[in-house]
Amino acid sequence: MTREELTLTIQRRKRTKRLTWKQIATAIGRASPIVTTAALFGQMRLDDDEAAKAAELLELGDEERLLLTEIPYRGSLPAGPPTDPLIYRFYELVQVYGTTWKALIQEEFGDGIMSAIDFDMQIERQADPKGDRVKITMSGKFLPYKKY
Amino acid sequence: MTREELTLTIQRRKRTKRLTWKQIATAIGRASPIVTTAALFGQMRLDDDEAAKAAELLELGDEERLLLTEIPYRGSLPAGPPTDPLIYRFYELVQVYGTTWKALIQEEFGDGIMSAIDFDMQIERQADPKGDRVKITMSGKFLPYKKY
Amino acid sequence: MTREELTLTIQRRKRTKRLTWKQIATAIGRASPIVTTAALFGQMRLDDDEAAKAAELLELGDEERLLLTEIPYRGSLPAGPPTDPLIYRFYELVQVYGTTWKALIQEEFGDGIMSAIDFDMQIERQADPKGDRVKITMSGKFLPYKKY
Amino acid sequence: MTREELTLTIQRRKRTKRLTWKQIATAIGRASPIVTTAALFGQMRLDDDEAAKAAELLELGDEERLLLTEIPYRGSLPAGPPTDPLIYRFYELVQVYGTTWKALIQEEFGDGIMSAIDFDMQIERQADPKGDRVKITMSGKFLPYKKY
Amino acid sequence: MTREELTLTIQRRKRTKRLTWKQIATAIGRASPIVTTAALFGQMRLDDDEAAKAAELLELGDEERLLLTEIPYRGSLPAGPPTDPLIYRFYELVQVYGTTWKALIQEEFGDGIMSAIDFDMQIERQADPKGDRVKITMSGKFLPYKKY
Amino acid sequence: MTREELTLTIQRRKRTKRLTWKQIATAIGRASPIVTTAALFGQMRLDDDEAAKAAELLELGDEERLLLTEIPYRGSLPAGPPTDPLIYRFYELVQVYGTTWKALIQEEFGDGIMSAIDFDMQIERQADPKGDRVKITMSGKFLPYKKY
Amino acid sequence: MTREELTLTIQRRKRTKRLTWKQIATAIGRASPIVTTAALFGQMRLDDDEAAKAAELLELGDEERLLLTEIPYRGSLPAGPPTDPLIYRFYELVQVYGTTWKALIQEEFGDGIMSAIDFDMQIERQADPKGDRVKITMSGKFLPYKKY
Amino acid sequence: MTREELTLTIQRRKRTKRLTWKQIATAIGRASPIVTTAALFGQMRLDDDEAAKAAELLELGDEERLLLTEIPYRGSLPAGPPTDPLIYRFYELVQVYGTTWKALIQEEFGDGIMSAIDFDMQIERQADPKGDRVKITMSGKFLPYKKY
Amino acid sequence: MTREELTLTIQRRKRTKRLTWKQIATAIGRASPIVTTAALFGQMRLDDDEAAKAAELLELGDEERLLLTEIPYRGSLPAGPPTDPLIYRFYELVQVYGTTWKALIQEEFGDGIMSAIDFDMQIERQADPKGDRVKITMSGKFLPYKKY
Amino acid sequence: MTREELTLTIQRRKRTKRLTWKQIATAIGRASPIVTTAALFGQMRLDDDEAAKAAELLELGDEERLLLTEIPYRGSLPAGPPTDPLIYRFYELVQVYGTTWKALIQEEFGDGIMSAIDFDMQIERQADPKGDRVKITMSGKFLPYKKY
Repeated sequence: MTREELTLTIQRRKRTKRLTWKQIATAIGRASPIVTTAALFGQMRLDDDEAAKAAELLELGDEERLLLTEIPYRGSLPAGPPTDPLIYRFYELVQVYGTTWKALIQEEFGDGIMSAIDFDMQIERQADPKGDRVKITMSGKFLPYKKY
Repeated sequence: MTREELTLTIQRRKRTKRLTWKQIATAIGRASPIVTTAALFGQMRLDDDEAAKAAELLELGDEERLLLTEIPYRGSLPAGPPTDPLIYRFYELVQVYGTTWKALIQEEFGDGIMSAIDFDMQIERQADPKGDRVKITMSGKFLPYKKY
Repeated sequence: MTREELTLTIQRRKRTKRLTWKQIATAIGRASPIVTTAALFGQMRLDDDEAAKAAELLELGDEERLLLTEIPYRGSLPAGPPTDPLIYRFYELVQVYGTTWKALIQEEFGDGIMSAIDFDMQIERQADPKGDRVKITMSGKFLPYKKY
Repeated sequence: MTREELTLTIQRRKRTKRLTWKQIATAIGRASPIVTTAALFGQMRLDDDEAAKAAELLELGDEERLLLTEIPYRGSLPAGPPTDPLIYRFYELVQVYGTTWKALIQEEFGDGIMSAIDFDMQIERQADPKGDRVKITMSGKFLPYKKY
Repeated sequence: MTREELTLTIQRRKRTKRLTWKQIATAIGRASPIVTTAALFGQMRLDDDEAAKAAELLELGDEERLLLTEIPYRGSLPAGPPTDPLIYRFYELVQVYGTTWKALIQEEFGDGIMSAIDFDMQIERQADPKGDRVKITMSGKFLPYKKY
Repeated sequence: MTREELTLTIQRRKRTKRLTWKQIATAIGRASPIVTTAALFGQMRLDDDEAAKAAELLELGDEERLLLTEIPYRGSLPAGPPTDPLIYRFYELVQVYGTTWKALIQEEFGDGIMSAIDFDMQIERQADPKGDRVKITMSGKFLPYKKY
Repeated sequence: MTREELTLTIQRRKRTKRLTWKQIATAIGRASPIVTTAALFGQMRLDDDEAAKAAELLELGDEERLLLTEIPYRGSLPAGPPTDPLIYRFYELVQVYGTTWKALIQEEFGDGIMSAIDFDMQIERQADPKGDRVKITMSGKFLPYKKY
Repeated sequence: MTREELTLTIQRRKRTKRLTWKQIATAIGRASPIVTTAALFGQMRLDDDEAAKAAELLELGDEERLLLTEIPYRGSLPAGPPTDPLIYRFYELVQVYGTTWKALIQEEFGDGIMSAIDFDMQIERQADPKGDRVKITMSGKFLPYKKY
Repeated sequence: MTREELTLTIQRRKRTKRLTWKQIATAIGRASPIVTTAALFGQMRLDDDEAAKAAELLELGDEERLLLTEIPYRGSLPAGPPTDPLIYRFYELVQVYGTTWKALIQEEFGDGIMSAIDFDMQIERQADPKGDRVKITMSGKFLPYKKY
Repeated sequence: MTREELTLTIQRRKRTKRLTWKQIATAIGRASPIVTTAALFGQMRLDDDEAAKAAELLELGDEERLLLTEIPYRGSLPAGPPTDPLIYRFYELVQVYGTTWKALIQEEFGDGIMSAIDFDMQIERQADPKGDRVKITMSGKFLPYKKY
């Protein structure tokens, strides 16, 4: 059983049990629903308790439960620019704003990067009369290049 | 003169005049420093007033000033995953969280996308005793797939 | 069961029941036959009613019916330029006319894009003594770049 | 002088003379502004009269005028999916609707393709209270596969 | 059952029945053996009669027979330059002579293309004392670019 | 001076002297106009006499003349499938008929290839009331795989 | 059964019967062990006798035996530069020495190529006190470009 | 001045002085003409004496002479499979025989590689009544994987 | 059974037996845990004793045990830059420091390479009050380019 | 002036002044010669003092000196696997050992990565009677994935 097969199984259980990702995430644990959902898509690990709850809710077997606690080989998309329009828009932001992010972040913080590991994120609905908006807030530790 | 050559010229003037992107953005106009910086990197257009101020500050010629007001062919990065570590971390977020964003946003909003056009963004420094953090807030209009 | 497997099943049922896409689309619902066909190819979702009718017509099981109502990971083609000649001709139009579309649309509307989400389309046969023609009409909302 | 250099020259003249593509197209000739603009981007050829008018309007030299009448090596975009958001949306349409177009066109017409050569197109503004729309109408001759 | 699987089945039957492509093509119909062979490789469609004969000869089931009459998604090769030496040599001809073909055909015919749809082809053995030669004759309708 | 620069020079002289490739080929020598044109596009070499005539006709300097006699690094197209429609159609033929050519040629000749080196070709206009056709005749020596 | 599946079967039999490629090649026939091994990897064909011996030794069924006599679609490696270090070193030789080979071979032989079809090869161990060496001798017929 | 520019200069001098690579290699030094030619193509370095002789023969300046003694960034070909037919045939050999070389060399020598660094090579003409042959002899030290 | 399938089996046994790679490596043999782990990921071979111990510990069958002793086709990652963040960081080091490594190693050692075959490596935890560090020590034999 | 042009200038000055990278690094500052060399290759920044010393030693102008203090767009290699053998060997290590590094580091440290930013490195010569070795010691802070 590969991690991709486990993701397919989880999607199947979610479908036939008519659950939402939020319901599953709430049932599983205390972490952000983003982290939990990412784990169910094979991009993060769950700890033992969380995996046990996930296994119970989604009727997973023992090996499947253990696999959820393992660190995955990350990368949720096929090679090349993503073809799905929702995901592509984020890729487009990197294409269009990449050099701007680099210029402004490094001007403010000096040479280094924003960590994608010591990192958290929120997704919210922002009511707006012209059409509701998706609000995404990201926060990553700034890591300066070490001078040695 | 291509837009890439104009970007090189602007970087050269910024360098020898010892300006920061924030100083330039403040001098140019009322829009977000992100939009203004992106325009100077050839990813957004300036309006006539803004371009005139930019031209004065950066000693640009007439054609250069006009070029700043044209809509550019966007895309600030070479083909393939970006090699620069700061920019790559954003690409990595798309790789790791892409399917999660899709699942959670579409679960909340229905079928559609977050616009990368009707979109705004802020970059802030978040003081943190364990090391300051980069905070990025994005907000894009949700666009539902039209049913026709 | 992946969405690709469901598409194969649908094609098999269509084949052995000797149905056309138009017949299937007519039986399923009120939306454009283009949208319905795209849904059966795993590129759009059906609503519950439509999926129920599709399931009845094509003898799909419960999980298959539910899968038809989920938002798919879009992208109907293998990576790289499409090898099928009919589809390639559209890709060629993008190659040849891409910069022209950009120049004329943005000259008329200002900086922004034609939405591929708030979008509809028709395909018609245009009788012509020199050989009938395929007429495709597309209409997408113009989305101006937000200035923030 | 390559065709790309000529395109840059034409863009420079357009910029400093403050012309629009429509004005240039109207001045040059009777063909669709789309064809004329495509020719100025190096994707179509002009006939001798049209090239002469273009040369006069844009102050092009003799060789430049002749080059406008030559059949170009077509392809207006760098390799890979286009990074410019406006042009990418059309590429996305091919990705999402490619198999649907194939299914519906070939169901209606039999085996063959829609010509991208015996082809014409119009771009119009469609007024709409919810936001104006871009309307594109394409018409290409259907070419059946020859049975030999 | 995908078209690729059907091609594998056909190859298996051909192998165990010890048939040649020419024998199969002769048994199936009146079209060129090239067209018939291409259909068996999933690149062309057979009409109902031809498919019935193919099904009888190759012991194919009902769905397989029907699949042979459907218009395939064309493209018989993996992505990238073909690795098989016989097929690569044709790719090499395009690499080496592509610009020459373009120059000479368009000089003779004006702006347009040689159709790959209204197209026929023959393959013959040409006896030659220095070693027999493969003679390929192609004929495609010239399609002029429409001026609109 | 690279071979690409020489090709640009030759195209410039052809343009301003208003010559056709056929006229140039006829003036240069006895070989097929295809070979001569290919040489002027940097894909074949000319012998000393031919190069001298080409240099006289096109007003090339000494080094340019010598360069025409050198064996070029072949490959007349940018990487990836060709974007020019005329040349792409040939690439499409390889995509669609590649496996068929392999099957039929090797069935007739045994294991080996059709040489693209010991190879000749003709391009002719074929008058046809439904629209003239491009006829291409290729002949390449069959080279059997050596058994050792 | 595909050729890749047959190669896996052959590797499995070789493994459980604890044979070497040389032993298999010796048992199969008179050709070079390189050709025979290449055939077992799906890159060459065996004649009927050889295939019969291979089938006996490796306990292959009838269809497998027949498949060994068919001309394969050649290409033994995944796309892109080979990742296996032993095979990569040969690819590196092409990268580093490619232009040198071209210069020296064509200086000696004129315009043409070294055939990879009318070609043979030997691999030998060369004892050397500093560490044994792999000696590879290749010989391919020189094929001059035909002038037509 | 880049190494590529130096290679162009060397080719220009060779052309106008009507030298062959062998003559240049003989004049420069004692190493194999392959190594010397590879150095002139920017793939190997020359020692000081050799570079001095090369500079004298080819009328190179001081910096050019020094550049010849530097270790180059190797890789003489554009990315992707080589388009030049002579060089492609070697790439094809890697494609077709790669897995065979690996199997036979590692069966004879154990786990490891043939060095492409501690490596030498010869190119010879092999007279043959059926057409002369190119004989290439390569010898590389076998390097066993270190067990640690 | 392919090597990839064997790797999946090994991961499954490790998971259900709740072993660590270090425990497995210790049980298997005397070599470095890096080499042993790499072998279990299909990148190195085990000798007969080691494979027997691995088979016993992980309950592998006879063919699986034999497969562990065979030299694998190396390359543990999908094509393109690795998407997993931990592995990507090493790829990034090659991108950023590649030219520096080349300059400093070749300045110290002359022209040649650091062997990746006659090579060993250690991974250690380095305690650090600011956060523990990963320490990797690599040592590869320097191989000078042979002058011949 | 781009950073690539500055790197070429620095290499030219180093060449004509006959300096080594170590001599330059020693003259410039207190940081590791690796960091300084990387800065001169456009991969790191120098501080003002270091840049002033570099400018004096290498006779750089004012703008060049300032450019050395700017944060570069990192990535020192063309796209695709590196063709230079020395650099490729490091890429090969990532290919072969990537999954092993991931398994062993994450087994020891938990889920996270080794930083390539809070990172240092040393390159040393290791005398060895069988041939000297290159010893590279890397140390990067372990960054655990944040749980939020």
